[in-house]
Amino acid sequence: MRYLRNTWYVAALDIEVGREMLSRMILGEAVMLYRKLDGTAVAVIDRCPHRFAPLSMGKLIGNNVQCGYHGLQFDCSGKCVVNPHGDGKIPRAAQVKSFPLVERYGMLWIWMGDADLADAELIPAYYSHFDSPDWKTVRGHSFQEANYQLIADNLLDLSHDQFLHANYHRKDAFLTTPHEVFVDGTAVVSRRQVLNSIASDAFAGNLPDPKLLVDQWKIMRWEAPGYFLLDLGVRPSNDPQAPGLCKRNAHILTPATETSTNYYFINARNYQRDDEKVDAQIREWQRIGFGEQDKPMIEAIQRGMGKQDLFDLNPILLSVDGAAVRARRHLEKLLKAQDEHEMQATLAQSAITHA
Amino acid sequence: MRYLRNTWYVAALDIEVGREMLSRMILGEAVMLYRKLDGTAVAVIDRCPHRFAPLSMGKLIGNNVQCGYHGLQFDCSGKCVVNPHGDGKIPRAAQVKSFPLVERYGMLWIWMGDADLADAELIPAYYSHFDSPDWKTVRGHSFQEANYQLIADNLLDLSHDQFLHANYHRKDAFLTTPHEVFVDGTAVVSRRQVLNSIASDAFAGNLPDPKLLVDQWKIMRWEAPGYFLLDLGVRPSNDPQAPGLCKRNAHILTPATETSTNYYFINARNYQRDDEKVDAQIREWQRIGFGEQDKPMIEAIQRGMGKQDLFDLNPILLSVDGAAVRARRHLEKLLKAQDEHEMQATLAQSAITHA
Amino acid sequence: MRYLRNTWYVAALDIEVGREMLSRMILGEAVMLYRKLDGTAVAVIDRCPHRFAPLSMGKLIGNNVQCGYHGLQFDCSGKCVVNPHGDGKIPRAAQVKSFPLVERYGMLWIWMGDADLADAELIPAYYSHFDSPDWKTVRGHSFQEANYQLIADNLLDLSHDQFLHANYHRKDAFLTTPHEVFVDGTAVVSRRQVLNSIASDAFAGNLPDPKLLVDQWKIMRWEAPGYFLLDLGVRPSNDPQAPGLCKRNAHILTPATETSTNYYFINARNYQRDDEKVDAQIREWQRIGFGEQDKPMIEAIQRGMGKQDLFDLNPILLSVDGAAVRARRHLEKLLKAQDEHEMQATLAQSAITHA
Repeated sequence: MRYLRNTWYVAALDIEVGREMLSRMILGEAVMLYRKLDGTAVAVIDRCPHRFAPLSMGKLIGNNVQCGYHGLQFDCSGKCVVNPHGDGKIPRAAQVKSFPLVERYGMLWIWMGDADLADAELIPAYYSHFDSPDWKTVRGHSFQEANYQLIADNLLDLSHDQFLHANYHRKDAFLTTPHEVFVDGTAVVSRRQVLNSIASDAFAGNLPDPKLLVDQWKIMRWEAPGYFLLDLGVRPSNDPQAPGLCKRNAHILTPATETSTNYYFINARNYQRDDEKVDAQIREWQRIGFGEQDKPMIEAIQRGMGKQDLFDLNPILLSVDGAAVRARRHLEKLLKAQDEHEMQATLAQSAITHA
Repeated sequence: MRYLRNTWYVAALDIEVGREMLSRMILGEAVMLYRKLDGTAVAVIDRCPHRFAPLSMGKLIGNNVQCGYHGLQFDCSGKCVVNPHGDGKIPRAAQVKSFPLVERYGMLWIWMGDADLADAELIPAYYSHFDSPDWKTVRGHSFQEANYQLIADNLLDLSHDQFLHANYHRKDAFLTTPHEVFVDGTAVVSRRQVLNSIASDAFAGNLPDPKLLVDQWKIMRWEAPGYFLLDLGVRPSNDPQAPGLCKRNAHILTPATETSTNYYFINARNYQRDDEKVDAQIREWQRIGFGEQDKPMIEAIQRGMGKQDLFDLNPILLSVDGAAVRARRHLEKLLKAQDEHEMQATLAQSAITHA
Repeated sequence: MRYLRNTWYVAALDIEVGREMLSRMILGEAVMLYRKLDGTAVAVIDRCPHRFAPLSMGKLIGNNVQCGYHGLQFDCSGKCVVNPHGDGKIPRAAQVKSFPLVERYGMLWIWMGDADLADAELIPAYYSHFDSPDWKTVRGHSFQEANYQLIADNLLDLSHDQFLHANYHRKDAFLTTPHEVFVDGTAVVSRRQVLNSIASDAFAGNLPDPKLLVDQWKIMRWEAPGYFLLDLGVRPSNDPQAPGLCKRNAHILTPATETSTNYYFINARNYQRDDEKVDAQIREWQRIGFGEQDKPMIEAIQRGMGKQDLFDLNPILLSVDGAAVRARRHLEKLLKAQDEHEMQATLAQSAITHA
């Protein structure tokens, strides 16, 4: 399968990685993550170059990984630094691929493409509020047996809320509100707004007066390969300067294989930040809404589709599909550009060889 | 895999379908069955044409199905009748394939081929006694991980009774009785008769005097694609006009996939019709005989064969194989005729296009 | 997959086969083993030639196997001897393939190739001490989801002891001892010796004085297709004539399929032969060392490699790989000779046909 390679993917939440090695499939490759003694997280291929044992079955010795099979040690750049056998000489090819890894905004970002291009400034800064004390986050990770684009379709068409998550959206100001879909630079945005109405279920319980008239918004922003920012909130209609109750949530999709995805979600709110009951409500929504409503539906679709492409199956298109279709087309354009670039690189390489 | 298409298949027993949607694989297609408010059963493809969600994960709203993902509603003909999004316009292609479905003799019969040819008169009338109060039925359904022809082989050679079902056939008048195999119109028939002997285990317990001399018969009748009628009974040898103890059982095979089958069985008897102990005995036989004796054997054969064709494996032929071999050959002839018909239809279509 | 065919494989330990039929996959074929009334073990293909039922689902009647489906009986040469149907005539093709099977040294040896070449003298006599009262054996069998060559690699490079089995080898005289690897006729041998040192963990507990200075050796001998003899022991350095504490263990690999193996191990010792505590220690090592340390590692490697060949993955080579690499090359040479031989046989056959 083709994946966008020269881009940052989330490899794990920061809290998932420590002094126990974590093996995670990313773009079809087994990657192993751990933290050095100074806390820096690193990522290498989870396969010893000697007999192909998963390195994650070995153990950490200081900053190095010792293979659990024959004891070769690799430093965090993937270079073999100890060969306990014979004269101890280290074969030149004894090297595990390592990956640029950056810890930022509570996540570990990995670069699976050309390491020379790995520029940390490309990590989307619109997740920076997760570091701010003005926002309280509740985070999670789910492994889903579905292609990441099927999950993206789900996120880009929140009109499914009122059906798949009907129990959470009995009273929802957005049910009949049209989506405005537009392209903003490299992002696809789907926006809904409702003015002067009572608040949706999602916020009503957190307002001092649930009957207060509010302006409400729900804006999903997508960028390739699978970054989502969901900005939603309510603000008293009679006080346009009020900060209101806001959420700025991340949904981030990292392809594991062609038919599976590591899905990371971070819920961030600017209100009742110390209220653990609100935390618990959000956790419950992540568990039920994502885990017991979205996940079985999307996985059933994946099983039914097998490895066929969505568009090859001639789906009918509805007004609510605008964002998902635009995102799929944009991603396809990026993949074609990557193909083109790789072909030219191959040709250039071949010219050099023949020169 | 090639399936006979222009014929009726049993999609479910009547009692299996109600106001809960039932998803069942039929000839490799996911089909969804439910009953309308007036009790009429209907069948449509179990896949929304929008994002391919299984419709059976949605819910019924009156006579319509609401997709559980984005809420499109389809009537029982498969036509989309509600689009809850945007201006509510319904795309022309928003149509799910529906299938002719007829409820008859306690079963729901589906036509997977050309709907114009679906003539309810083709449903085999020799199952009509299931509707008669003169017969008491005990019915069941079993999903088996084997090609339907392997199950047909089993049913067409009941000489396996004395080995695979030895515990039920310790005393069986038919053990050494030759099978007469003949073709009767479109049916293959395998018949065994024994005159003037004591009754087999299957009936001995139900006779007033188990030592009574009886005439006994066991006649299996097969018709394509997978209809079986097993007619068996005993009658006092000295009273040829007596109705005797008779069973006229259906075994009906509907291919799920190339290597799995939905198997429906209906046991019908003309004696002790109100005796629940006899019902329980029959249920026990269906559970043990079919479920714990036939099924593991046939599934083991399937696993060993993989996707190879039986005849490609050069099976040795015994005298008892006459019916099974004739049935396989007849089915093959029908499949070839279907291939031929489809090729001609394609050619005709192509001639029209070029004209 | 190519397997060496004209050679003996272990089909089972003697104790595994009795009057219950045992089905075991060998070189990709389902083979069924049982003992005749006189105790002789026999092996036939586990598939009836009639409807391909596994014969192991039937039952033994004296020395014959009765198929559980339709009751054909086969003698232990695989010839059909009873057809209970019709006139009882036995079709000429009613024959199951049988295999030469020899019981020797506590194992049942099967010949999967040309039966005319099956010479019991080819069974490796270096396992004959298992029959001797001077040696006490503790034996086991493990089914592993890995190609047999990956298990061979493990056995031919015991430098993994100090990592994968670190808990058993805390004090091991061999840790820094170089392997001498050499070819001895058709065998590849990996030898390590240490003179005048205190005994390794494996023996220290069994010596009268664990501080005694001893000479120690650990010699692994491999022959195709998967015979291993591990000779290891200690002897007082000041008494070169003493028998010492010795083990002469067999590890024998029989390919089940391309990615699975039946692995037989026999531990034989010349000391404390009646001490059941030593038996229990050895059993524990077989359970933990082989089952919970080697097996998960080798199976993880197999899963990661899929069906790729080890050398196609460009493994780096270490000094400790000498024996494994030599064994793989030798096996490859034997397989090529077999290919060549088969091609010539085919050509000769074709010449005869055309003559």
